[in-house]
Amino acid sequence: MGIHNYFKSLSDLEGINRCPGKFKYQEHSVASHSFKVTKIAQFLGTVEEHHGTQIDWRKLYEKAINHDYPELFTGDIKTPVKYATPELKSLLSQVEEAMTKKFIEEEIPPEFQSIYELRFSEGKDESIEGKILAVADKIDLLYESFGEIQKGNPEPLFPEIYEEALATIVHYQELHCVQYFLESILPEMLEEGVIPYSQINKVSKQILGKKVTIV
Amino acid sequence: MGIHNYFKSLSDLEGINRCPGKFKYQEHSVASHSFKVTKIAQFLGTVEEHHGTQIDWRKLYEKAINHDYPELFTGDIKTPVKYATPELKSLLSQVEEAMTKKFIEEEIPPEFQSIYELRFSEGKDESIEGKILAVADKIDLLYESFGEIQKGNPEPLFPEIYEEALATIVHYQELHCVQYFLESILPEMLEEGVIPYSQINKVSKQILGKKVTIV
Amino acid sequence: MGIHNYFKSLSDLEGINRCPGKFKYQEHSVASHSFKVTKIAQFLGTVEEHHGTQIDWRKLYEKAINHDYPELFTGDIKTPVKYATPELKSLLSQVEEAMTKKFIEEEIPPEFQSIYELRFSEGKDESIEGKILAVADKIDLLYESFGEIQKGNPEPLFPEIYEEALATIVHYQELHCVQYFLESILPEMLEEGVIPYSQINKVSKQILGKKVTIV
Amino acid sequence: MGIHNYFKSLSDLEGINRCPGKFKYQEHSVASHSFKVTKIAQFLGTVEEHHGTQIDWRKLYEKAINHDYPELFTGDIKTPVKYATPELKSLLSQVEEAMTKKFIEEEIPPEFQSIYELRFSEGKDESIEGKILAVADKIDLLYESFGEIQKGNPEPLFPEIYEEALATIVHYQELHCVQYFLESILPEMLEEGVIPYSQINKVSKQILGKKVTIV
Amino acid sequence: MGIHNYFKSLSDLEGINRCPGKFKYQEHSVASHSFKVTKIAQFLGTVEEHHGTQIDWRKLYEKAINHDYPELFTGDIKTPVKYATPELKSLLSQVEEAMTKKFIEEEIPPEFQSIYELRFSEGKDESIEGKILAVADKIDLLYESFGEIQKGNPEPLFPEIYEEALATIVHYQELHCVQYFLESILPEMLEEGVIPYSQINKVSKQILGKKVTIV
Amino acid sequence: MGIHNYFKSLSDLEGINRCPGKFKYQEHSVASHSFKVTKIAQFLGTVEEHHGTQIDWRKLYEKAINHDYPELFTGDIKTPVKYATPELKSLLSQVEEAMTKKFIEEEIPPEFQSIYELRFSEGKDESIEGKILAVADKIDLLYESFGEIQKGNPEPLFPEIYEEALATIVHYQELHCVQYFLESILPEMLEEGVIPYSQINKVSKQILGKKVTIV
Repeated sequence: MGIHNYFKSLSDLEGINRCPGKFKYQEHSVASHSFKVTKIAQFLGTVEEHHGTQIDWRKLYEKAINHDYPELFTGDIKTPVKYATPELKSLLSQVEEAMTKKFIEEEIPPEFQSIYELRFSEGKDESIEGKILAVADKIDLLYESFGEIQKGNPEPLFPEIYEEALATIVHYQELHCVQYFLESILPEMLEEGVIPYSQINKVSKQILGKKVTIV
Repeated sequence: MGIHNYFKSLSDLEGINRCPGKFKYQEHSVASHSFKVTKIAQFLGTVEEHHGTQIDWRKLYEKAINHDYPELFTGDIKTPVKYATPELKSLLSQVEEAMTKKFIEEEIPPEFQSIYELRFSEGKDESIEGKILAVADKIDLLYESFGEIQKGNPEPLFPEIYEEALATIVHYQELHCVQYFLESILPEMLEEGVIPYSQINKVSKQILGKKVTIV
Repeated sequence: MGIHNYFKSLSDLEGINRCPGKFKYQEHSVASHSFKVTKIAQFLGTVEEHHGTQIDWRKLYEKAINHDYPELFTGDIKTPVKYATPELKSLLSQVEEAMTKKFIEEEIPPEFQSIYELRFSEGKDESIEGKILAVADKIDLLYESFGEIQKGNPEPLFPEIYEEALATIVHYQELHCVQYFLESILPEMLEEGVIPYSQINKVSKQILGKKVTIV
Repeated sequence: MGIHNYFKSLSDLEGINRCPGKFKYQEHSVASHSFKVTKIAQFLGTVEEHHGTQIDWRKLYEKAINHDYPELFTGDIKTPVKYATPELKSLLSQVEEAMTKKFIEEEIPPEFQSIYELRFSEGKDESIEGKILAVADKIDLLYESFGEIQKGNPEPLFPEIYEEALATIVHYQELHCVQYFLESILPEMLEEGVIPYSQINKVSKQILGKKVTIV
Repeated sequence: MGIHNYFKSLSDLEGINRCPGKFKYQEHSVASHSFKVTKIAQFLGTVEEHHGTQIDWRKLYEKAINHDYPELFTGDIKTPVKYATPELKSLLSQVEEAMTKKFIEEEIPPEFQSIYELRFSEGKDESIEGKILAVADKIDLLYESFGEIQKGNPEPLFPEIYEEALATIVHYQELHCVQYFLESILPEMLEEGVIPYSQINKVSKQILGKKVTIV
Repeated sequence: MGIHNYFKSLSDLEGINRCPGKFKYQEHSVASHSFKVTKIAQFLGTVEEHHGTQIDWRKLYEKAINHDYPELFTGDIKTPVKYATPELKSLLSQVEEAMTKKFIEEEIPPEFQSIYELRFSEGKDESIEGKILAVADKIDLLYESFGEIQKGNPEPLFPEIYEEALATIVHYQELHCVQYFLESILPEMLEEGVIPYSQINKVSKQILGKKVTIV
């Protein structure tokens, strides 16, 4: 029992890859996803606060950094399984809760158990911080799928993920930070595009043309 | 729709690692696990047949090569989740069956659907071939966990897996092939042991002693 | 000596990559290649049987699952070396046979040696099962090279492999299963194509257009 | 320019390994290190607060999640270089600050620049949150080096890192959370030890002894 | 102390990747970069000698094989940091020299120290061999960045690296070997291009057209 | 045709792993092996010269850097195959020579062909430089196998490789550089040993004992 096991388990999240099975140019672990979601949530919260929304920063950071930890207990259950029937979804939620509870009772000292129950509970609630987490989670997913498409991944799954992620973000468009994302960040991302191979020829000719006449 | 998707999905099994999360010296994909289980089942069937048991070889090979394919539909659901309650277990089985059925209807041409329904159904039944599959699956797991312990993996999970796998194999000890495994293969495995670092000094001294006197 | 060494050697096939040296987006081990070839042969046999050909399933599965095992003894000798002269080819075959024989004598118990001699002998003979193996082996190679070209691998080796693999498959076009492959599977594969980067812009505009007017 | 570049750069931290060059059984990226440090700091802050210390949680989380981001600008400069002379150290700090300033001016919109200047400044100051960050950073380093030693890494660098990390933690022993770590977590870690190979024999005998008499 | 440490350190260069952080399809270690630079310098020296230039081959090989070894002492300091100010550049050079000197004093036996001081000193001097090293180093960098662009890497860093590398090579155009590279090697490289996906369709149709009429 | 293909092929040697199949903690490519052998040969040559032997440095460096290049043409043929019969060995040598000749004729411009014929010929001849190459090649193999044994690799192959490599080195004991290796480098290597896990406890107690009394 103990916090040592808890600290050690953090490293297990470095060994769990997101979206296993499908070919990817770039793998992402659950640990580094959690890092990126927290950084993205930090920016979104900053935009939201700039527009006068009150942000409970402690709550926001806790939701973001902890949001995928329970995946350690349940493994990677595919979404179509999770949502197959309302009955199954409810049962799976109960099991996840029970396993989280058991982990806390076994590993977390009694004086900190209530705090960790809160930390490991579902983060994507209706509070502003819960909504920011939901958006940040999808923005990282959008970047992951965008990166694959941009690099030439022929797997139709990635445009599907991209579409689903963007649709979910748009669903939260009443948030200032989502408006900011759609107006100022997404266009920059889309502008980036790909680098055509012909650029190599162009650059080469420019350099050679400027300085030598031999080619 | 189509067999192309089915063929392509085989490669997805190359990208799914067994037992994700825990540190391992050597990763094993579901594809190569399936290969090894089939080869092990081949040997076990040979022993069984040698003792007069009648083996339906087609059935045995089909069970072995197909046994983990449905993991593509469901993902890697952790065992404690799967078996949390009888109700959940039954619901998850229903979902797996429904998803397998859906895959077959969408991807397999009608004339072959009934054959594939059989191929993707649970292989570990009470037939001799089903039992051999159950044993072969555990023998490969035994080798995987043995390999980690032998290489010095400090994770307590691996002795647990080893123990559980061996206990399951012993559970089938009425089979001739299990007796063969316990009598003739397991002792060889256990004898192998580790290579103490001191052997390097010994070997070095022998070589140097034989040929030079300088060291 | 013994079956333990044989079982352990299966894992060595997980560590041998196909076509070493050339840059690939996706590596494939000999173990997972064997798995895929067996699954493909299973389908081809099913088609063949559907057209009334009698299939010896035990023979087909054994040929498929064992066909690359002798690579463990010989290493990966490049094809142009293997076929450099008829004399060398014959000598290399003799050596491979001798090494396989030695392995069987040293590791396989006497009562099973004759079975394993058969299992480790050249599988691609003139029987229907031998032909299906030859086709299945090339179909997996076709998928491997297709996957590289589709992902943008600029190495001219892969179109060459693709071409050679497809030509060999066509060579067996009198088989029903080859006709099925050429008529029903290959066109699906070729239709798949690539995902143009511009799709990202299109999808983005559709989602944003439907729901927001801000961009 | 823009936040898109900032979001994209988070992924670069997934591709930077800690302590490059030395052989390691397990690699850790800067991204996943940042994740783990934030989770460890969360626990340390919880202990500290439990003992009545007032924690500014927003500050603590921001310090933890951002603390290694400037490594993107400077690369991985080896510690002996960094601390070679006071003059060099001071110059390198100036360059890091200048590059951070330049990044903020170029990529962060004006309205958020002052916030990000604070976020990217040196986190390990004399505040309680700065001290907790310093301890959490060393605890993760302790776990990394402990993991290597436990797995049998013969490189003398890892005991040196372990020693330096533990000595730094002890340096902060006036903190309640450090006392908690030394009293309750470190002993659990040290107890864990290694799994002797002989355990395999013992476990095997127990299982076989209980159930079969054949071995 | 000793040569053992020096020999062992060579392997550390296998574990240091070039240009860490940015996504790459293909990683290159400092060890294999050193190998390639030496082989390229060999060819350049051969061309130069063919045109009557006298080459000190020992000097050329020593410069090439040793040129990145000091990176072991300093780590990977990003170029913009290194060249931030003349003062910093000079201080960093002094530190690198001092660390190299310390390494030689601690690890290299006294009788060989003066030779290794020379070997570990800056190789890119104004001698013909120093210039060939400078060119060979950039040619390998050109190939690395070309390889990424050709494979479809969308990262703008790689065209920048390509441009800078080619500009530096052109800077040495008074060398016969550079003229040879620009006239005879670069055009071959640029001609290589990419393999359009459509080639697959073309090749497929040719093969199928020649032999079957079914598709 | 051309030097571009030759330069590009250098990178293929980065993708060929030595000793494929057997589990290793640390993989080594043919490219980085060539780098290390050249560096080791450099040191051995230096020792030899120090004892008055005349070294043709150009010849030594060329032999070392080029010695495994022909593996590109032949693939990795296992040693027992290569040496199965004198007839096969001789035929394989002829094929390797023919393929090397073909490569040179197709890719190397006529004016440099004779030089490259020499460079790609067997390097381990009876000259002092040929002997140093033979020793350097085995020293790197000794380090590779030593590294595996030291890290706890249970595979009996590695002590066998270690033994064979050391025996070959001793075979050349009339060389000054071999005597130096056996007297001054090997003992350092053997002294290094492993780091017992108990050292962690010792170090921990020392640090804690010195500074705190709480544990």
